[in-house]
Parts: sequence; C-alpha cells; structure tokens
Amino acid sequence: MTENKELYDCIIVGGGPAGFSAGIYAARYKLKTMVIAKSMGGTGAKAHKIENYPGFPSISGMDLMKKFQEQYEEYDVDLQADEVKSVKKGDDGMFIVVAGDKEYRARAVILALGKKRRKLNVPGEEEFAGKGVSYCATCDGMFFKDKVVGVVGGSDAAAMAALLLSAHATKCYLIYRGDELRAEPIWTERVVKEPKIEIIYDTNVTEVKGEGMVKSVMLDKEYEGSQELALEGLFVEIGSTPSVVLAKELGVETDEKGRIKINSQAATNMPGVYAAGDVTVGICEMEQIVTAAAEGAIAAASVYEGLLS
Amino acid sequence: MTENKELYDCIIVGGGPAGFSAGIYAARYKLKTMVIAKSMGGTGAKAHKIENYPGFPSISGMDLMKKFQEQYEEYDVDLQADEVKSVKKGDDGMFIVVAGDKEYRARAVILALGKKRRKLNVPGEEEFAGKGVSYCATCDGMFFKDKVVGVVGGSDAAAMAALLLSAHATKCYLIYRGDELRAEPIWTERVVKEPKIEIIYDTNVTEVKGEGMVKSVMLDKEYEGSQELALEGLFVEIGSTPSVVLAKELGVETDEKGRIKINSQAATNMPGVYAAGDVTVGICEMEQIVTAAAEGAIAAASVYEGLLS
Repeated sequence: MTENKELYDCIIVGGGPAGFSAGIYAARYKLKTMVIAKSMGGTGAKAHKIENYPGFPSISGMDLMKKFQEQYEEYDVDLQADEVKSVKKGDDGMFIVVAGDKEYRARAVILALGKKRRKLNVPGEEEFAGKGVSYCATCDGMFFKDKVVGVVGGSDAAAMAALLLSAHATKCYLIYRGDELRAEPIWTERVVKEPKIEIIYDTNVTEVKGEGMVKSVMLDKEYEGSQELALEGLFVEIGSTPSVVLAKELGVETDEKGRIKINSQAATNMPGVYAAGDVTVGICEMEQIVTAAAEGAIAAASVYEGLLS
Repeated sequence: MTENKELYDCIIVGGGPAGFSAGIYAARYKLKTMVIAKSMGGTGAKAHKIENYPGFPSISGMDLMKKFQEQYEEYDVDLQADEVKSVKKGDDGMFIVVAGDKEYRARAVILALGKKRRKLNVPGEEEFAGKGVSYCATCDGMFFKDKVVGVVGGSDAAAMAALLLSAHATKCYLIYRGDELRAEPIWTERVVKEPKIEIIYDTNVTEVKGEGMVKSVMLDKEYEGSQELALEGLFVEIGSTPSVVLAKELGVETDEKGRIKINSQAATNMPGVYAAGDVTVGICEMEQIVTAAAEGAIAAASVYEGLLS
C-alpha cells in the first residue's frame, strides 16, 4: 500500500453527474480536490439519448458525461480512475480513502456513489439495452412515439412510467408478477382508467428478442393465446439499489430504502461527509442529471464553507 | 381584455434558467404548457461568462439561455413574451394569469420570477442611469473602451464585472464596503492578479456626479487624498431582491428575506402554486444556474404528479 502524502481538501468518490459537478464547483472554490471513480460517467453515461438536461436538446449520456469530465479537467485537479475500496476516518480526524493500491487523505469527502438499476437478468436484456430496453421512462419515453411498449413492474415508478409512456406510445403493456399492483391507489386507478394501458398480471418476462432493436418479449405464461408479446420498447422498472456499501462501513446513516440521508446542504449525519446524486434520498425524489448536478454543486459549496469555519 | 379560452395544465411565469428548465420538463410530461416572460433569459442572460454550469466549460449567459430556450421550442408548447400583470385564483379553482392584454387560464402555475438588481439609492444614481451608471457590465461594458470605470460590490458578480470591464477600460476601481471580497476564490484571485483593477476596500459610494454624463463619484472616506474619485462609468453590482410582487398578491408565503418558501417538491403554501429559481429560498442557499434548473425540473414534476391526483 502506497500512501499518498498529500492531504486533499476534498475527495469525491464517484464519476457520474453528481461527482463531476461537485468536482467543478470544488475546483472553483480552489479546494485541493480529487475525483476517484472506477469508471467515469455513472448511470448518466448509459442513457442512449438525453433530452432533458437543460442546455442540450439532445445528447448521448456518454457525450454529456465527457463534457462534464472535460470541464473538470480545465482545472488543476486530480482525477483517479480506480475502484474505491474503503473510506475511513483516521485518528487525526482526516478521512482515508483507499483506491486501487493507493491511500489518499482528505479533510472532507463527497460520496457520489450512484445506484444500480435492478435488472431482469433474462436473456436479451443486456444485448438490447439502449436498443429498446430502457430503465428510465422520463429519459427515453419520447423515443417511443406511436410505438407499442411494455413496462415491467408494479410499483409507483412502474405505474408512472406506464402513464408517461401512454402519452407517447399507441399501447403500453404493464407486466407485473403479482395479481394486484402495489402502486399507490391513485396511481393504480389512473393506470386502470388509461385506455392505452393493458395490465398483464401474474406474469414474468423471461426473454427479450429482436433484431438490432427489440421486437418482442417472451412471457412465462400465455397472454391472449401466445407466450410471445410483440413490442418495440421494454421499460424495466423493478427498482434500483443505492451503492452504499462504502457509506455504511463509514457509519453514514441511510433511510429505509438504503439511500444516504442528506440535509438541504448535502451533509450526512457524519461531520465532513457529504453526499450527492442517486445514492442519496436527494433534494426530492427525482433522479435526474440536473438534480444530481445541483446536489454535487451544493455538496462542494458545503465542503468549502465547512472548511472555512 | 381578450380571454384565451384554452386551459393550460401549467403556466410558467419567468424566462430564466428555472422557467425554461420547468418548461422543458413540463413539455416532456406532456402537460399543456406556456412560458410567459417579459424578457427571456432572466438574470442568467446578463452574466458575461458562465464557467460553472456543468456541460459548458465557458459560455456567455446570453448564449446559454438561448440554448435553454431553443430546447424548449423543440416541443409543441407556447412561449409568450409579455409582462405578467397578475396571477389570481378563480372561483372554479383555476388560475388566471393576465399578461399584456390577454388572460390565460391554468390548472397550476410555476413562479420563476427571478430577482431584480439592487440599487445604491444615492443622489445622482437615477439621473445618470444609462449615462454612465449601469447595472449590467455584459450589456454595457463595451461602451467604456479606454475609459476609467468603477464597480460597486464584492460578490462573484462584482468580480466578474470588474474583470470584464478591465478588458475594455484603461482602469477599473472595485469599490467594496467590506475589507475582503466575498467572491468565489477563483474570481478573487483573478481580480487581484489583474493590473488594471484597483480594489478600494471599506468604502461606500455616496453620490454620483457629472454633467450630462458621469464624471466622478463621491466616497464616504478619502482614497488617495480625496473623497472624489474621477471615473466615467459606474457599474452597480450589489445584489438583487426577489421579484415577489405577483406571488404576494396571490397569497404565497415568503421568508424574512422576501423569498418564496418552497418545500423539497418546489411547492409553495398554496395548492397548485409552485416556485423555482432565485425568487425562492431554494433547495439550499445557492443561487446558481444548475440549482435553479434543478428546481424548475422538480416544480414541473410536482405539477405533473399534482394533476394526476
């Protein structure tokens, strides 16, 4: 283990929109800053087209994240492509971040760890990701204008996705493994009332099929005489899990969904530890690039103010 | 008074970053939406250089706001360049927005009213407004080529104005009442390094003097042996106050600084009324384009969810 002797003002763990926005702001506050992430871009980089980040009518997630990264690199700051193995608080009150085979020290840390979308784990799902398979109706719904789509799930998020999609698509199947949606009654009612939505209960998707783009899914039981259901888009809305392992080891408080609790200043329960983006409960329940970027900026401002005091 | 018979789902009052971000999101939620603003761009358009909006290493406020507006115009939505005179709640529960000589109706409103530049309120300020006294270095800086100018203030905006002016003027005094600039360190550093800028600390401007055009200002203490400082342009950059007249008339609650109180869903105390951007207390105390844009997105999401229920 090599110890990096330099003491950083701020180490940001995570290279998604929240992490890079935090990095840009921290650099502008002249904080000695490092961003460490296994891969740059986070979940944002996976969106095949982003049309709702203000400033860019249409850009791929990868390209937008490249712009964030390039902007960060304008400043005299460090960027380390490594997996962070642990974040601990030392006896001297400084944080010790272990990444790769190196150890870094910082006065404050920003956890922008992101989350992982839960997947169906069925054949074809990965192959057609971004080619009809999506994990974000708000992001990608527009691309399915006048098409037939499906949503997998029975939660609020699934119901909302189906409603949102029904505004664009000609038809939207809501495919749920249970016999009753578990969404709030109000969502369920809306879904049931929407003529474009057809709910398929007690059913699982077992395979995604297509040629270049999604053409159908296989179901684990027949629906209207066939186990194959033709559709052009499949939205997987079966939840996501925040990547909080590092945070929990450090002692940071999470909510019942496992998300890091932050206040309006992006501070966690631990002094010197801030968090931003999808790994947190957030400033609201939205998980958007613009809200993650705002949280990153807020976290950096709080680190700056915290170090001044 | 012409009544516009159409009922909007959402009318957004204000054409700055918060308003347009709200517009983009509302349009994507397929809400029937209108943005109404006297001038498009808001305070954001006045910044001569923006380097901290994630995605753009360096862009003028005007250009960034044009991008927001163009993105909004991608959608089938209305944009009305008019001054909003009043927002009221009708007996039927719908909101009535009067702008220019027209009346519009909406199920929900988003107040993205922004703020107004604060004035010095000293003799001569009003008399010489537009004759040497300015509130926008971006707009008027170029008229002071090879002249001596002054900037009043110590914030980011004041520092930026001084830097911008130093590109045109032969000399730029930065006159601040405090003993240390409160600008971001990166701006402070640039100001201190710029040989054309001379900072006068602990000093207030008490009067603007001239003949037809500004010729000097009076200071409340001597600087280099005199209380009179010769200059041809004075840029007032001492902050701004939230434009809450419309909100107060409607009955929306504000805080002790006159900013609209919102919760984490951008909702005000009045059902159906949401607010975003600099006119609000905000999701934190930051007044940044990225936080305003995030609030706009949150407000639109809340309108969408509110209308479903």
